[in-house]
Amino acid sequence: MSAQIIDGRACARTLKQSLEADVARLRAEGLGIGLATVVVGDEYSSTAYERRLRRLADELGVPYSPRELPADVGQDELLACIGELNAEPSVSGILILRPLPSHVDESVVFRAIDPCKDVEAVHPDNAGLLALGVPRFVPSTAASCFHLLDTWLDSVGEDRAEFYHRCLIVVVGRSNNVGKPAISLGYERQATVSSVDEWADRTTGIGRHTRWADVLIVAAGKAGLIKAEHVGENAVVIDVGINGATGRDGKVRMIGDVDYDSVASRARALTPVPGGVGPVTDVWLLRNTVTAARLLAGQRIEQALPALPVARTAQVRTLQEKS
Amino acid sequence: MSAQIIDGRACARTLKQSLEADVARLRAEGLGIGLATVVVGDEYSSTAYERRLRRLADELGVPYSPRELPADVGQDELLACIGELNAEPSVSGILILRPLPSHVDESVVFRAIDPCKDVEAVHPDNAGLLALGVPRFVPSTAASCFHLLDTWLDSVGEDRAEFYHRCLIVVVGRSNNVGKPAISLGYERQATVSSVDEWADRTTGIGRHTRWADVLIVAAGKAGLIKAEHVGENAVVIDVGINGATGRDGKVRMIGDVDYDSVASRARALTPVPGGVGPVTDVWLLRNTVTAARLLAGQRIEQALPALPVARTAQVRTLQEKS
Repeated sequence: MSAQIIDGRACARTLKQSLEADVARLRAEGLGIGLATVVVGDEYSSTAYERRLRRLADELGVPYSPRELPADVGQDELLACIGELNAEPSVSGILILRPLPSHVDESVVFRAIDPCKDVEAVHPDNAGLLALGVPRFVPSTAASCFHLLDTWLDSVGEDRAEFYHRCLIVVVGRSNNVGKPAISLGYERQATVSSVDEWADRTTGIGRHTRWADVLIVAAGKAGLIKAEHVGENAVVIDVGINGATGRDGKVRMIGDVDYDSVASRARALTPVPGGVGPVTDVWLLRNTVTAARLLAGQRIEQALPALPVARTAQVRTLQEKS
Repeated sequence: MSAQIIDGRACARTLKQSLEADVARLRAEGLGIGLATVVVGDEYSSTAYERRLRRLADELGVPYSPRELPADVGQDELLACIGELNAEPSVSGILILRPLPSHVDESVVFRAIDPCKDVEAVHPDNAGLLALGVPRFVPSTAASCFHLLDTWLDSVGEDRAEFYHRCLIVVVGRSNNVGKPAISLGYERQATVSSVDEWADRTTGIGRHTRWADVLIVAAGKAGLIKAEHVGENAVVIDVGINGATGRDGKVRMIGDVDYDSVASRARALTPVPGGVGPVTDVWLLRNTVTAARLLAGQRIEQALPALPVARTAQVRTLQEKS
């Protein structure tokens, strides 16, 4: 064991404290804030996430409106539910939990969300602003990866800009909700960014690419995919994976996409699962809900990522569009 | 000299022939098609591009509406011009030529274009659909790079899917109009894609990344940036650069970002400048104008990139949205 362990829980606590102050400021200014979640069916992962958000919203004093729809809900009914939440002044952020049942067209559903309440940036307009480098909202998992990285760099006394400019970030997995937004955030930091997907794993092997990474972000959804042989000694490894594994005692525990023990023996730093990316992601989603509240109130807001000047431009522009 | 030279002019001629047939079909069906360009000021590069498009539209029998505005035009006046073109039924495609003067906010201007007439996909909605893997329009330069690659692969008898799945594509340059769309098209082909920008050039050097590329797409806007030492022997090199260079005879000629002679002595294949990416890009812009005409007419259209099933989904979805 040589890698530094990046403590997501501690990072989330600090972020939560600053968020509490933000929420208090909003209330003092008389501005509405509220998070609405929509869960379709009773998939374990979405209901578990929903419960965590509900608790966090409660702790932060953010009004919370959960909507639960049956797994066989019609698409029109789901769209009508989103329409209501769009029109509801007390709701500033809307999160549709994945997975949606297969009879529903996800892209039609995501397009129905008011872009200014779309806290996970799933509407094409928000995906586009992120891709163009002027995000309105930064999806919470990718934001969490870079918040952990930035915080860790600060803690070891490395200059962020100097680090990222010399950095090769390799992102394993290319989903619209995690991999691609993480790639965009790497671009924003002016790093070299490499995107590896399952095909490389099936053909030439991913080690050819991952071994050179200064930062390795793994969001492949494949337990234990990354082993010591896939990482370099200077790698900072961010594990986004959430997989269930049954231990010898028959109990199911949560493990990541990274083979923790072997990678911890080799890499420079590593986020654990659980206790790494997850806790920060939860808080970030609430943080985006605050951002949305200010956006909807037509006020100039603090940018989503304080260290990045480009995001400020986007927020200002967004507010101009609204007014 | 060992590299195969990929002939963009020949490729453009073939594409133009199939486009002539498309335009004839549109006319037979009584559907309107027209391209409008907006040039602000008299920057050499934009006026030269505008002349090429004008000639091509004329050859293809596509009605062409050029708008020329003075360099000191007010932003509101420019937006009003776009509003007129949005409302004009005889215009199916709108292209705002870059560069725009610095007093104009490019993002506000691009957002003003009707997304269904936005043939270069500069509106955030179109940038988002492209980033999400379901493009409505594929920006013409990036489309041209991959059309040349696909055509070349066919010519040497390599299976496209097999090639791309094992392929590392390195894209040098990360602009919103060329680099990022090219990266998205690499994702669509399920390749590993690496994005290198100017900071790598200034710090660790780009050779560290480019030398491993199976496909190297260079869109950095820096004459002669890529030399033999930056490429591997199996590399297929696509040169997007357009730079003016004064020869010993005092004449200005166009050169790419790739040092042609040295790279041609080493790489597997190479596009020349001029006569590589440029001619195909021009035709692709007109092709997108045909796509827009069908989109506006609410008809099911052939997808932008015939080999890629994902694009078909997008077009169908787009038409559903319109109806």
